[in-house]
Amino acid sequence: MSHEGTLPAELRTLIRQNELIVPTAGMSKGYTQANLAILKKEDAFDFLLFCQRNQKSCPLVDVTEPGIFESTIAKGSDLRTDIPKYRVYKDGEFVEEVLNIKSYWEDDMVCFLIGCSFTFETPLLEAGIGIRHIEEGCNVPMYKTNIPTTPAGKFSGPTVVSMRPMTEAEAIRAVQITSRFPGVHGAPLHIGDPKVIGIEDIHKPDFGDAVTIKEGEVPVFWACGVTPQAVAMQSKPSIMITHAPGHMFISDLKDTNLSVF
Amino acid sequence: MSHEGTLPAELRTLIRQNELIVPTAGMSKGYTQANLAILKKEDAFDFLLFCQRNQKSCPLVDVTEPGIFESTIAKGSDLRTDIPKYRVYKDGEFVEEVLNIKSYWEDDMVCFLIGCSFTFETPLLEAGIGIRHIEEGCNVPMYKTNIPTTPAGKFSGPTVVSMRPMTEAEAIRAVQITSRFPGVHGAPLHIGDPKVIGIEDIHKPDFGDAVTIKEGEVPVFWACGVTPQAVAMQSKPSIMITHAPGHMFISDLKDTNLSVF
Repeated sequence: MSHEGTLPAELRTLIRQNELIVPTAGMSKGYTQANLAILKKEDAFDFLLFCQRNQKSCPLVDVTEPGIFESTIAKGSDLRTDIPKYRVYKDGEFVEEVLNIKSYWEDDMVCFLIGCSFTFETPLLEAGIGIRHIEEGCNVPMYKTNIPTTPAGKFSGPTVVSMRPMTEAEAIRAVQITSRFPGVHGAPLHIGDPKVIGIEDIHKPDFGDAVTIKEGEVPVFWACGVTPQAVAMQSKPSIMITHAPGHMFISDLKDTNLSVF
Repeated sequence: MSHEGTLPAELRTLIRQNELIVPTAGMSKGYTQANLAILKKEDAFDFLLFCQRNQKSCPLVDVTEPGIFESTIAKGSDLRTDIPKYRVYKDGEFVEEVLNIKSYWEDDMVCFLIGCSFTFETPLLEAGIGIRHIEEGCNVPMYKTNIPTTPAGKFSGPTVVSMRPMTEAEAIRAVQITSRFPGVHGAPLHIGDPKVIGIEDIHKPDFGDAVTIKEGEVPVFWACGVTPQAVAMQSKPSIMITHAPGHMFISDLKDTNLSVF
């Protein structure tokens, strides 16, 4: 069952009951899915500031107040249970993967929901631009670059980008389409030679999977929502909780609400 | 002397030396001017969250770390001295207007710079759309509306809007032009009947001055940067420092950098 047409609230209920423990790509078509990062209040101001200073890589779609686990963009949601799989890190080290985080929850925790490229991939597909990692049934390739983020407090590090190969004509159209989504990464950061942004081997992504780049195609790079997680992890917070890769939070927000026109 | 062509750094130096104690409209054309709000760290997370949740009315262009008074968008700047006139409020009550805030500065203060409509008025003017309050040499009219902001912590209250009258054809063009600036209020919140958004008398603004609405013109309303100041004031923080109306911070950021294309 694809769950393409299932409403977000129904899916969150299934996920909460551990009846749906799979990646969420393609579910609740048209609704915004988000990356999760949970930190304690002591780290939250710096992290919020980091996101504010690096909006292209850290497009916040919701931030909860300390101790609140219902997202404002998902009525009745529980961010401790409504994601299929979570990852828990202590002092920057992976601890375990869990189906809910109730036993880890503390009253001073703040949940950050960060927009994801699913939101702009739909209009790219609708414009007839093929998305290679979808065609090849794998994860989008992601790379660390030499583009620094603007530091905030304890948080600093390089920008991570995702890459989609396409023809130059498609790249121009993709700039136009993704410019309409400044709140979800926006226009590409770079088109063409990977070395210019510090990527030595385009066939060896730092995260995700390599994809085919065909004759006549150029790689197009967008700021990636993995950036804030990677940066936060480097600072080794006492505890940090994230979604497991591909297992996102499905909100009630429509993708079209994130378009500026 | 208009200072239209003077560079921001030069103006900040003049202002720091109290040699320029006037409203900043029209100075350093093409460079972003910003509203200032300074709060103590204890209020900063909630206020940053409020701005994140209400981006149309609270378009942050910079936020400093606690104790830092140099803005990242103005090299060598000192936010304690580089604004012509400041206003100091304690427990929500106006205390005094001062030329610098060095005696008020504390090591746990956070400076918020909030974008202002000067940024999108320039491209409106360049598109041949007259800005009535500029033509009439007065302040833009601003109104409290019935549009609630999304609360955050101790901060909540109604959205304040600014109003510019224009023909309907110009209003359509203005939607297009200001949509390019999602980081500085973006598209209008409302066009037409003021009562729909809770404004009883368009000729009696809550802040600023009334302007003429000519036959064949409609009022066009944008979310206004006064919103976060008004909301913060309502919560009666122990201390809050703002710019004096019209006396803005002139940054090194170009207005065109705030356009999504």
